[in-house]
Amino acid sequence: MSLCQHADEQGKKVFWGLEGLYVNETEICYIDNDSGKIYYRGYDLEELVKYASFEEVAYLLLYGKLPNARELEEFSRQLRARRFIDSSVIDLLKMLPADAYPIDVLRLSIDYYCTRKKFINTGSLKDNYELAIDLISKLPVVLAYFYRISKGLDVVLPREEFDHPANFYYMMMGREPDPVEYEAVKTIFIIYADHSLANSTFTAITVASTLSDLGSAIIAALSSLKGPLHGGANREVVNMILEIGDEENVEKFVKEKIERKERIMGFGHRVYKSSSRGDPRVPILKEVARKLAEKKGGKYLKVFKIAERLENEVTSRLGSKGVRPNVDLYAGVLLYLLDIPPDYNPAIFAISRIVGWVAHVLEYWKHNRLIRPLERYVGPIGLKYVPLSERE
Amino acid sequence: MSLCQHADEQGKKVFWGLEGLYVNETEICYIDNDSGKIYYRGYDLEELVKYASFEEVAYLLLYGKLPNARELEEFSRQLRARRFIDSSVIDLLKMLPADAYPIDVLRLSIDYYCTRKKFINTGSLKDNYELAIDLISKLPVVLAYFYRISKGLDVVLPREEFDHPANFYYMMMGREPDPVEYEAVKTIFIIYADHSLANSTFTAITVASTLSDLGSAIIAALSSLKGPLHGGANREVVNMILEIGDEENVEKFVKEKIERKERIMGFGHRVYKSSSRGDPRVPILKEVARKLAEKKGGKYLKVFKIAERLENEVTSRLGSKGVRPNVDLYAGVLLYLLDIPPDYNPAIFAISRIVGWVAHVLEYWKHNRLIRPLERYVGPIGLKYVPLSERE
Repeated sequence: MSLCQHADEQGKKVFWGLEGLYVNETEICYIDNDSGKIYYRGYDLEELVKYASFEEVAYLLLYGKLPNARELEEFSRQLRARRFIDSSVIDLLKMLPADAYPIDVLRLSIDYYCTRKKFINTGSLKDNYELAIDLISKLPVVLAYFYRISKGLDVVLPREEFDHPANFYYMMMGREPDPVEYEAVKTIFIIYADHSLANSTFTAITVASTLSDLGSAIIAALSSLKGPLHGGANREVVNMILEIGDEENVEKFVKEKIERKERIMGFGHRVYKSSSRGDPRVPILKEVARKLAEKKGGKYLKVFKIAERLENEVTSRLGSKGVRPNVDLYAGVLLYLLDIPPDYNPAIFAISRIVGWVAHVLEYWKHNRLIRPLERYVGPIGLKYVPLSERE
Repeated sequence: MSLCQHADEQGKKVFWGLEGLYVNETEICYIDNDSGKIYYRGYDLEELVKYASFEEVAYLLLYGKLPNARELEEFSRQLRARRFIDSSVIDLLKMLPADAYPIDVLRLSIDYYCTRKKFINTGSLKDNYELAIDLISKLPVVLAYFYRISKGLDVVLPREEFDHPANFYYMMMGREPDPVEYEAVKTIFIIYADHSLANSTFTAITVASTLSDLGSAIIAALSSLKGPLHGGANREVVNMILEIGDEENVEKFVKEKIERKERIMGFGHRVYKSSSRGDPRVPILKEVARKLAEKKGGKYLKVFKIAERLENEVTSRLGSKGVRPNVDLYAGVLLYLLDIPPDYNPAIFAISRIVGWVAHVLEYWKHNRLIRPLERYVGPIGLKYVPLSERE
């Protein structure tokens, strides 16, 4: 078939997976593999996790600076004020099967909301920030509502005095988080909020580059995040740990995986492959997970210990090849410790990462350029059309 | 702010818009600017438009070869058999405002359908072809249903004896297309079916590269297609022509646009910028449009003539700079001649291009590689976190 391949196409260099390629300029997130640090808008992520609220970090990512007291109050007020969803969206949630994938449910809800509101890209920054804050505020509410509706539980109304992470936990679980739980939710929300051009964020700017609307960019990003090589990984991690079942099975599990050359979920990341320091998010999440696991004990501590043993086992065998734990290992554990069902993990990633998607889209639009690559043609050309009756 | 920019990031080459960059290998579509031809799987698009049915072309793109009589019969049978949509999707359509954007409605319908069916990527080619044929078959049905429901008209049931393009026209318009109309619909369906890595197709493989599911890839592609720099252009073209209103206004319109350095919809395409032959799809669509316009006369012929005058005026002024008509100019005209309301044009693009999206995703999965580029950081690093009370 490839006999008549076009000569011009020979020898074209193909950038598979766009690996190592710079496609954009950004002021949002910087991953410094030399120092093992991640910066949001120039601020060390570790410091932000320690000192800042989720609202401060979201404001920082969206607007490019830490808010002052007045700005933070106004931003928080807007987020709080939009914690209600249309009754038509609730009707839609009730039309879905109880075991629908929560990440699909989030996407569908935004899709429905944006279709009804006829969102298009007006080019107005004000409109886009308004929609962004609206969606950032509503996504956790939709998730909590779906969780409770699908379980046959009464929905829990938002509470004015709770901030964004606390209100989500409260609306989903029906009780206020204790301080350690609150720290866990807040840490996950901050850690997942951006990570430069992850596939979903790149998808968001790719869609946005056609001047499609912000809602469309987010719907596309959610479609990407669903994938097991991206946002689906924190779900797989928990299922894997539960399948391993006990610390003493870890060694055998890892050995067999390596022998069969199978991927071990929660390990390896293209960006950190050649870094001796690994993913800087791992130690942050691990310490919060340890604290919560030790406090809760029992099956929770058991899951944490399996993860820690996995980390040691995999790192000692594959660390020299750049395979180390990634963000999803202890994020998955932490979500388990918070009693989140594994199917909800990718959706929780989404309700945090939406901040990074919006920040990136708005930044990309400042100097928009349609993303439209080429592909190297390796098929035939000039085949003769044969009438149907003469085909074999 | 950029004083403390990280030194490593200086001088990194940024591939804005991925222009001129090869990101994939393909056997699906080849654009040969030297000869001014487009090939689907090695067959000249012009010949396919002339001799092949839409079903043959869809089969060719999806399976890599022209079907024999038995294969074509089976494929057509499957497409026909799936021309019904769940009553729950019809309920959803009835919940939408009558003036919702049809492209949003298509996306939402797939989103709803896939969420309810809990589609994930099983990795099975059989499953994926099944979903693909299902969606290719149902998309035109959804569009026709929404059109008639939103206009308060009775829905029209599919007819067994009609092929894919004829059945769509029949279900939307409530009458069988005459031979010239049929040729127009079929030509648009074939011409729009693929165009290598257009933004929406690139979006589809980007999402698919996380091993997310085929439905998710299509939902993301629809989000891209909505943009006015992509699938939204055939809508803008018609609105522009109607605004111009008369052939004799064309010269003034073009002059003013050029003076104000504004984009003229339906002109210019990155892939054909340096080609002396322009977009090969333009003459094909133009001849079908001319035939239909002359047959229908009146306001239809007027719109065709404005488009033709626009083509001449823009090409004589900007042709030397590579600005020539693109596919959307006469596709937009043709859709107007078929009495399709301009808001529906991007959705009609979608019900054809879904074939190319599927073909590309299934091909990409054969040698899947996660798409995950980098971005050049141009912001500050090492900013000191200042407590809220000390911020100005």
